[in-house]
Amino acid sequence: MRIKGKHYRTIWLNKGDEKIVQVIDQRYLPHQFIIEDLKTVKEIIQAIKDMHIRGAGLIGATAGYGMYLAAMESSSSKSFMETLHRMADELKISRPTAVNLEWAVNRQLQAIGQGKNIEECIFLAKETANSIADEDAEFCKGIGIHGVEPIKEISKHKHGKPVNILTHCNAGWLAFTDFGSATAPIYKAHDNGLKVHVWVDETRPRNQGANLTAWELLNHGVPHTLIVDNTGGHLMQTGKVDMVITGADRITRKGDVANKIGTYLKALAAKANNIPFYVAFPSSTIDWKISDGLNEIPIEQREDDEIKYVQGWADDRRQKVLIAPEKTGAVNYGFDITPAELVTGFITEKGICKATEEGLLSIFPENDHF
Amino acid sequence: MRIKGKHYRTIWLNKGDEKIVQVIDQRYLPHQFIIEDLKTVKEIIQAIKDMHIRGAGLIGATAGYGMYLAAMESSSSKSFMETLHRMADELKISRPTAVNLEWAVNRQLQAIGQGKNIEECIFLAKETANSIADEDAEFCKGIGIHGVEPIKEISKHKHGKPVNILTHCNAGWLAFTDFGSATAPIYKAHDNGLKVHVWVDETRPRNQGANLTAWELLNHGVPHTLIVDNTGGHLMQTGKVDMVITGADRITRKGDVANKIGTYLKALAAKANNIPFYVAFPSSTIDWKISDGLNEIPIEQREDDEIKYVQGWADDRRQKVLIAPEKTGAVNYGFDITPAELVTGFITEKGICKATEEGLLSIFPENDHF
Repeated sequence: MRIKGKHYRTIWLNKGDEKIVQVIDQRYLPHQFIIEDLKTVKEIIQAIKDMHIRGAGLIGATAGYGMYLAAMESSSSKSFMETLHRMADELKISRPTAVNLEWAVNRQLQAIGQGKNIEECIFLAKETANSIADEDAEFCKGIGIHGVEPIKEISKHKHGKPVNILTHCNAGWLAFTDFGSATAPIYKAHDNGLKVHVWVDETRPRNQGANLTAWELLNHGVPHTLIVDNTGGHLMQTGKVDMVITGADRITRKGDVANKIGTYLKALAAKANNIPFYVAFPSSTIDWKISDGLNEIPIEQREDDEIKYVQGWADDRRQKVLIAPEKTGAVNYGFDITPAELVTGFITEKGICKATEEGLLSIFPENDHF
Repeated sequence: MRIKGKHYRTIWLNKGDEKIVQVIDQRYLPHQFIIEDLKTVKEIIQAIKDMHIRGAGLIGATAGYGMYLAAMESSSSKSFMETLHRMADELKISRPTAVNLEWAVNRQLQAIGQGKNIEECIFLAKETANSIADEDAEFCKGIGIHGVEPIKEISKHKHGKPVNILTHCNAGWLAFTDFGSATAPIYKAHDNGLKVHVWVDETRPRNQGANLTAWELLNHGVPHTLIVDNTGGHLMQTGKVDMVITGADRITRKGDVANKIGTYLKALAAKANNIPFYVAFPSSTIDWKISDGLNEIPIEQREDDEIKYVQGWADDRRQKVLIAPEKTGAVNYGFDITPAELVTGFITEKGICKATEEGLLSIFPENDHF
């Protein structure tokens, strides 16, 4: 994606010294654009834990590069494989809820296991890390290619006016290595010359919409307007939203959607106002082993300080302000479940399908055996 | 209501010098409890405009006291009535959307008009100001008496566990002269020994829930938990909400509800999850002249800085932090419309009724002629 005209991914190897992983430190966005060097597994774990980077796809890619650093670090230890596995375990628990994290680490362990000597192991780790990142971008690119179609359809009835798309949280390129999931169709539409305008939910408590999605769209030149999470219903009631596209953290085989807290409220409003509600994700997000989102997906609870304090920018630095009485308690659920029946369609790298088991199996038939 | 054990209203005349109006300056809550002296009509207008005080009932009461100050100030001018009317006009436009403001000023003009001399005019203005404030408190008290009944009903099935009530924004005693509208039944239930627990929506963009409702409940000792506005749907899905009570800014004769932006989303979620959704208000909130909320109630748009900046407390002072890219635009709609069919019942000073024209007329039959 473009930042001030230059193409970036969210993670890459330093061109001058390929032993250094570089990422955009998202904690400072949108106020400062800081590229961080990650030179050790410890620094990679810190970056995942403290959310210098976040988002399912990017966490997976970062873990992939983390395993590459782990292979290099382990090469000087007495027992290469033992050290590597210990580092792998540490990486896996750096954020326990992200499916892609464990998946990427395991994929690396398998790949590295093929090496005949340490040098080859390191080479394989690097190749695999690059593959994980590339595939992530490819998947998102596919989502864009398929997801642009419903936008194109709607634009036919807009008589030259922009298609108004509402999105929640950041399922943008900052959450993957490139393109994003919910944003991929939007970028594709914009780049193809279709007129689009995005309503950006600020997405309390962490404000990923205000901090990240708005910043992405601004840099890519996509017209957008920031709103508080309360506003979507009113916009839908008054004909100001043509479609909704969100990302997903987990999809059940029957099509229930776990996504950032608040997604469910927008899905209800879209249904009530007859507005298409799409969920975009790479197929790695589907959990084929579970069916009922409400009963089978545990909802992460985070610290209540994220509710009581708002982080922002003042006096040229990051600052936190308290917005509630100090003694008032808060709860901080990270996600909610949008039942499949509220979803118009799923946008994946393989195509668009209905939010049902039949729909998912129609484009991913290889999962019928589960 | 109680603050640190002492009873307060939101507005009163200074006991030592009844020429001074005193209010709680709500801009500093919940961080500082500051009582402000208002000595002139100009100061009253400033307090309304800059939201030292807010809320339909309290705006009306403040305007009432403003007219008392206006009567005193006009007494030294050449033309008492001319000056009084000029000040009345200035008061009326200090916040154009609040129905109670104009109503209170007009009521004062009529009352003052009965005076035989300036001294009597001032006396009548003071009496009327006190009456407006007292009646406001009485109405809210009535809402509490009627509104406690559904809470009592629900508590019968809770087996000693608290009734979980979700509320949005601040329709508390800080919005009136005492008790509040949405909070009146909650305070009544708590004072009667019923177990209640309140989910407090923070209510972006101005965070009246986090700043004011949480502070009120904390001071009165009512168990409560702060949540971001995105959370209500998840709580309802998972059985953690027994009922919703909100206030209202305007009610149409057919029962549509204009209230703080985001109310509609909670009403949709309550409906989807079979949770009673009540709206509490004094009868002055009903606009008998209009029927269709979506088409007949204009929605106020406020400054976009309220979205892009969050105000809070840091380093012992009020501070604002920027939470979005500076160049990103925002829109700030203040209210939305909850269609009558999503509302379980209205709680008013005269009783509880269905959210329909028949329902409203059953307890306010005098309005049948409109």
